[in-house]
Parts: sequence; structure tokens; C-alpha cells
Amino acid sequence: MTQHSHQTAPTQFVEANGIRFAYRRFGKAPEFDPELFIDGIDPQYWAELNDSIGGVPLVFNQHFTGTMDHWDPAVTDGLAKGREVILFDNAGVSSSSGEVPTTFEEMGADAIAFIKALGLKKVDVLGFSIGGFVAQEIALQAPDLVRRLVLVGTGPRGGQSMATLTPEAQQIFGATYKVPEELWLKVHFSDSEASQAAGREFLKRFLRRIENRDPEVNEKVAPAQIEAIGKWGVQREGSYEYLKTILQPTLVINGDNDVIIYSINSWILQQNIPNAQLIIYPDANHGSQYQYPERFVRHVSDFLSERDSHVSDLPPEYDSYVSEYDAAAPAVFESMQESGS
Amino acid sequence: MTQHSHQTAPTQFVEANGIRFAYRRFGKAPEFDPELFIDGIDPQYWAELNDSIGGVPLVFNQHFTGTMDHWDPAVTDGLAKGREVILFDNAGVSSSSGEVPTTFEEMGADAIAFIKALGLKKVDVLGFSIGGFVAQEIALQAPDLVRRLVLVGTGPRGGQSMATLTPEAQQIFGATYKVPEELWLKVHFSDSEASQAAGREFLKRFLRRIENRDPEVNEKVAPAQIEAIGKWGVQREGSYEYLKTILQPTLVINGDNDVIIYSINSWILQQNIPNAQLIIYPDANHGSQYQYPERFVRHVSDFLSERDSHVSDLPPEYDSYVSEYDAAAPAVFESMQESGS
Repeated sequence: MTQHSHQTAPTQFVEANGIRFAYRRFGKAPEFDPELFIDGIDPQYWAELNDSIGGVPLVFNQHFTGTMDHWDPAVTDGLAKGREVILFDNAGVSSSSGEVPTTFEEMGADAIAFIKALGLKKVDVLGFSIGGFVAQEIALQAPDLVRRLVLVGTGPRGGQSMATLTPEAQQIFGATYKVPEELWLKVHFSDSEASQAAGREFLKRFLRRIENRDPEVNEKVAPAQIEAIGKWGVQREGSYEYLKTILQPTLVINGDNDVIIYSINSWILQQNIPNAQLIIYPDANHGSQYQYPERFVRHVSDFLSERDSHVSDLPPEYDSYVSEYDAAAPAVFESMQESGS
Repeated sequence: MTQHSHQTAPTQFVEANGIRFAYRRFGKAPEFDPELFIDGIDPQYWAELNDSIGGVPLVFNQHFTGTMDHWDPAVTDGLAKGREVILFDNAGVSSSSGEVPTTFEEMGADAIAFIKALGLKKVDVLGFSIGGFVAQEIALQAPDLVRRLVLVGTGPRGGQSMATLTPEAQQIFGATYKVPEELWLKVHFSDSEASQAAGREFLKRFLRRIENRDPEVNEKVAPAQIEAIGKWGVQREGSYEYLKTILQPTLVINGDNDVIIYSINSWILQQNIPNAQLIIYPDANHGSQYQYPERFVRHVSDFLSERDSHVSDLPPEYDSYVSEYDAAAPAVFESMQESGS
């Protein structure tokens, strides 16, 4: 529970599975503050909320060839306002030792070893792009370790056009860029003026950390990850069946025109994971969360802070509303309105 | 700006297009309250927010054979906490005079006449099911009247399986029910135990208003609405082209297994309306907003309160974060964190 941010969090190390994992950990769990007694949220509700998410950090799993410094500080710091966040390099990536495995099963197992090495018993897991494949593997291999799952710009095993890079991805990753980081303008953002402008703002934030920046990955990372993508993406009869075993509340988010992992794969994830919500953002490509960071942080924070109850998905004011209304209707509601707004 | 609620709002009347429209209006626009100075929201931001949505009521458009009393008070009162809401019966429905037209174009024109008769120059429009067809028509015929659009459990002209009732809808609407209202358990909720339990809670809320309840519709309403559905649903080459002309920020919401208007139609709406977000809820049928009213109210309220800016979709703390960070990084963020949480 530090006061560090994306820019200042030191890179730390922990050893597991013979790998020295690099990670950064910052942000803090919410604490009850009577000043926040607004909108009819009563202290009891707040206490329950705090119990349910307090001490559950959010672990980020990164995209193709990405390091801890490829996350957007608007997203990581935004989410760190209400919870601890943990960024890390999986095996063989950037500051972590070891080799990148050529299957997502192994990457998932490495991630689980890393999380357990931190002494954590329960985490929320966010994965972006191929980090979403790793996130699914974590939930599949260690279901008790995962409370909630956030899958961003990603897809299922054997999804649509996932066995090889899409034609658009081949073109984008195959091109050369005057400024290397401008690759990400094409990967994460749509061609619209508005999206590209949002992309340039993202690049400024992305480049802002100077001290102890994570080194770019070595030349062995991309081929290993591409080999793993090929195995993950191959379509088989019943490719999506495994999704039915992911029982965690899940939030799937993507842009409406993701050319790296086609958006329809997010629809497929939602349709097959039993308790999944889907959110699609407009005029957006693979990195929709960097185009709309405020919206994304709000949606993810709200999702992670929801009570687990499925049926009585109502705040306490509605509970009392329901039970008391039959007896004394208008007076109850009017007093509720006065205290609540 | 009254203190009325769903249960207490009187039915009022206004005349337009030769129709005497029945409506109810309650809730209030947000006002700046220094007690709400939390999470880094500064008074300037609040003032802008207030300007942008203050005085913009949300007009609800109802489903097949529904009256003002077919809305869920958890939804209407939930949304009325931050804005005015207006429920009404369109021409020929329940307490309104006139005949139900046999096209949604005409129903849209009637709705526009009603809104203008209230003296309103700008409204947000929510439509559920066939009310979503009317909502689209309002936006198409009177684009300057509509600020933002919320389309729930609905679809486009010529959508998938929309020219006739779906087989599931035919079965559900053709069956008889011991308690007539139990029809809505089948229409709005999935067959899962959890969804049906949520449905029974919905029915309690739905039946709670006793005084001045809207009468059920007469026998001419269903045939006219079904005729209109047939015309709306017929598939043509380029059926979805008109959606490109809906330029309002739009939020599309549905359950993941809507058997009345198939969920894929919500995907089609999002893919074709230029600035549309999509949210899909799990284990949910046509009335997902009644299964998850808290979640729905939060998503819709957040959407209606977002600033219109597309590119700089960031709260003010990020603006200062960006500009000040280059100069004096950690101190700024730490003070932001202290004041903000």
C-alpha cells in the first residue's frame, strides 16, 4: 500500500519457477471515509464492498512484445486509485529472466507461479491482447486464485482469424516507422482523425516515465510469442467449450473495429463465458482502452467493485425501498431522495 | 423539478397532432453541491457537466403493448436521481387518445409532436424493444431535438429475424398465464433460476403503484403494433445504411440471449451507428435492464453524464496531470491522490 504511481513505482523482483520476475506494484485498496457518504451509500454497504475487494490486487498481462512500460499511465494510475495494481514482465520478457515459452498454457503457469510467489491468495486479472490469452489460462489453471477477470482486445482459443496474424496486423507490424513508437498508433487506434489524435495523447503518456524504464524486449520474444499465437488460434470442433468452465464474473472490452484480433472474438467470449459482460467502444481499434481511458477506468472500476450477488443486484436503498414501500410508500421515497441527492 | 417518484407522479396531459398525450414527469437535474467535491472532480468540471445535461430530460419509449406502468421503478427512479425523466403513452396507447399508427415512422412523428408540445428543445431519448424503433425514428426525423440516445433490447430496420415475431416470441406471447403479469417473466428474463428470481423481484416493483395506474391497452393496440413491426423488420439491400446518419452519441444495451429481438441485432446497431457503445449483460433475455437495474442505471447515468468531447475523454485531473507532470512529477500525483481518495 504505497503512494507510488506508474511513473515512480520501482521495479522489484521475485523468484519462482526458476524465473526472476520483474514487477511493479502500486495503488491502494479503498478505505471507508465518512466524507464519501453520498448517493445513499450507507456505511454497511461500504464496509461490505471494502471487505470484498480490499486486498485483492489487479494483475496486468501485457500484449505482444510489450513491457511494463507499454501500459498507459492514465489506465494504470486511474485503476490504482481504488485498488492495488501489479504490472509484471512474464518469463523472458524485458527485465524478467528466462525464455518466452511457445504456448500460452506455459505462460499462464509462469504467471500463476509469479502471483503465488508474491504470497497472494486471490487476485483480479486483466489481460490485453495475447495477455488476455494468458489471463484465461490463469483462470483455467488456478480458478481459486482468480476473483474477477477483465479481457481487453482479445479472443478465445480458435477464434475468428486468430491462427495467424490478420492481414491488417501483418501489414502494420511489417511496416517501418520514423519514430518506432508510432507503430502503436496503427496497432491500437483507428484511422479516424479523432482516434489518431487520442493516440498521440496516449504516446505522450506512454513515454513519460524516464527513470528505470523497462528495456525493449530482445529479438527472441516475438518469434516465441508468434509460435504460441499459432497454436492458440487454430480452430477445432468445440474450440469454445473451455470458456464454459470460466466461472468468474468477467468483463470483456474491445473497440468496434479491432483489426489485430477481430472484434467479433469479444462477442464470442461474451456468448460463451457464463457470467460475462461485454462493452464495445466506437470508432476504436485494438487499444480502445487507451482511446477512452476515463471511460475504461470507470467501467473496470465499477465492475471490480460490484457485489458478487447475481440476483439482488441492487444497492441497499432499493432493498429498504422494496421492503418498506408496501407499508408507507411516498414518505419513504421522499426521505430517501432528500438524503440521497 | 418536483420531488415526485415513479409511484407518486401524477398523470398529466398535453395536446399535439390531435392527440391528447398522457405523461408523467419527475426527477431533477443535478445541482452543484460542495459536499460532492470528491474524486478530484473540480467545481468547474461539475459546472460544465451541469450545463451540458441540466434541463435535458430523458424521454422513455415503451415496448409492445406496454403502458407507463410497464417501466421498472428501480430504473425510472434510479435514473430520476440525476435528471428529469418523462414517461408517456404514445398515440392510441392506454391513457392517450387516438389510434396506434401502423408504422414506426408515424409513431416517431407522434412522439416528436408530444415532446415539442411540452416546450422542450433538447431531450435524451431511451427506447426499449419497439420503443427503440420509435427512438431511432425520433433521432432520424428530428436530429436537433435529440442529444443522446439509449437503445435497449432492440434492433435496426430489417434486422435478423425481425420481420415476424421470433418463434420464441410467438410461443411466449401465445401462451396463457395464471397471473397475467407472469407473461413478463418469460419475455424479459432468461430461464435460469437466478434470472427468474430477479424477474419476480421486478414484478413486485412493477405492481407496486396502486393509485392512478395506467389502464391496460385496448384490443386494437397489439394488431397495429404487429403490423408496424412487420414493415420495420423486412430485410432489404442496405437495410442498415440509415444507421450511419444517426450521429448522436448512442448507448446500446441488451441481454446476451434476447429471444424476442435477437441479441445480434444490438451488435448490428453498434457496428453501424457511428458513435455507439454496446453493453451486453450475461444470462439475460429481452429485459436485461430489469434483471440488473443497479448496473443499468449506473451505465446509463454515466453515459448521459459524459462530456461530449470524443478525443479528450479524460477527467480534469488527467489534464492537469498531463500538463504538470513534465515539470514536477511525483509531488503532483501524490497530492492528487490525497485529495482524490
